[in-house]
Amino acid sequence: MSNENVEQILDVQLTCEGQATGKMRNELKVTGSWNPDHPWQLATDEGPFHGGDSTAPPPLALFCASVTGCFMTQVRAFAKKLRIPIASLKVTGSFKWQAVTHPQRPYVSSPRGFGLDIEIDSSATPEQLKELIAAAKRGCFLEQTLIRPNAIDHRMKLDGRWVEV
Amino acid sequence: MSNENVEQILDVQLTCEGQATGKMRNELKVTGSWNPDHPWQLATDEGPFHGGDSTAPPPLALFCASVTGCFMTQVRAFAKKLRIPIASLKVTGSFKWQAVTHPQRPYVSSPRGFGLDIEIDSSATPEQLKELIAAAKRGCFLEQTLIRPNAIDHRMKLDGRWVEV
Repeated sequence: MSNENVEQILDVQLTCEGQATGKMRNELKVTGSWNPDHPWQLATDEGPFHGGDSTAPPPLALFCASVTGCFMTQVRAFAKKLRIPIASLKVTGSFKWQAVTHPQRPYVSSPRGFGLDIEIDSSATPEQLKELIAAAKRGCFLEQTLIRPNAIDHRMKLDGRWVEV
Repeated sequence: MSNENVEQILDVQLTCEGQATGKMRNELKVTGSWNPDHPWQLATDEGPFHGGDSTAPPPLALFCASVTGCFMTQVRAFAKKLRIPIASLKVTGSFKWQAVTHPQRPYVSSPRGFGLDIEIDSSATPEQLKELIAAAKRGCFLEQTLIRPNAIDHRMKLDGRWVEV
């Protein structure tokens, strides 16, 4: 088998250092393992509901942009790879959640449905475009994350030691 | 039962309008249903791997910031609600994925583990802090999204009609 037909594993790892500042603002430095010397400086804040100052988008806005943007990246990257011409691409994402609130207790939240509406200006056939979308679904890091259950490990520093919580 | 003990359902809905520009840049306007007149203007881009110009963070950087920031919001919001004092809060998120790449075919990606390391400067007891973290897990919109499988509905406009794809 020649090298040209060999699958390879690509590891993609990011670290996010978040520091709480202001009333509800978070400063977040994100570093990609492939680009360690050029971290991205991001921020989130909240509006009146959480007593924040709206100095930055809320976390959910970053999330919706990340999912929509990640899918769009795959569509354009794979259009090149599959030699499918694209003149323009527009994607409208819809994201719904619910929280059960209580005056005296923390609320409990849950997702209530996500959708992506895709508009491609292209001379390709509908079959080619459907093949492109199928490839984008398989390639999209965030779609592949959202469609399966993920454990999140939590550790807290207590008395100088990391403890699973 | 008095009004003070009644649970209520809070609907949280966001729309993200993404337009592909440049080589791999996406302009993303995110609107929250609770704040329709003040959308957030965000952008993603890619680096050399995808042939982008690195004019904005990649989608995965927004995602990591959103998950870390959302969890941090819950910790501070619920600390107030549970009357647990917090002098400072730092959270370091770790996010891993893999892609199986092939020279001639689109890659296929999958998540490989997420973690949050939490450092709280507080006069509260370890038990109070553990209670706070448990409440933050239940309240965090994005943690509650990631720990369960989510369907994503895709529609594409073909010949002027929306078609499920």
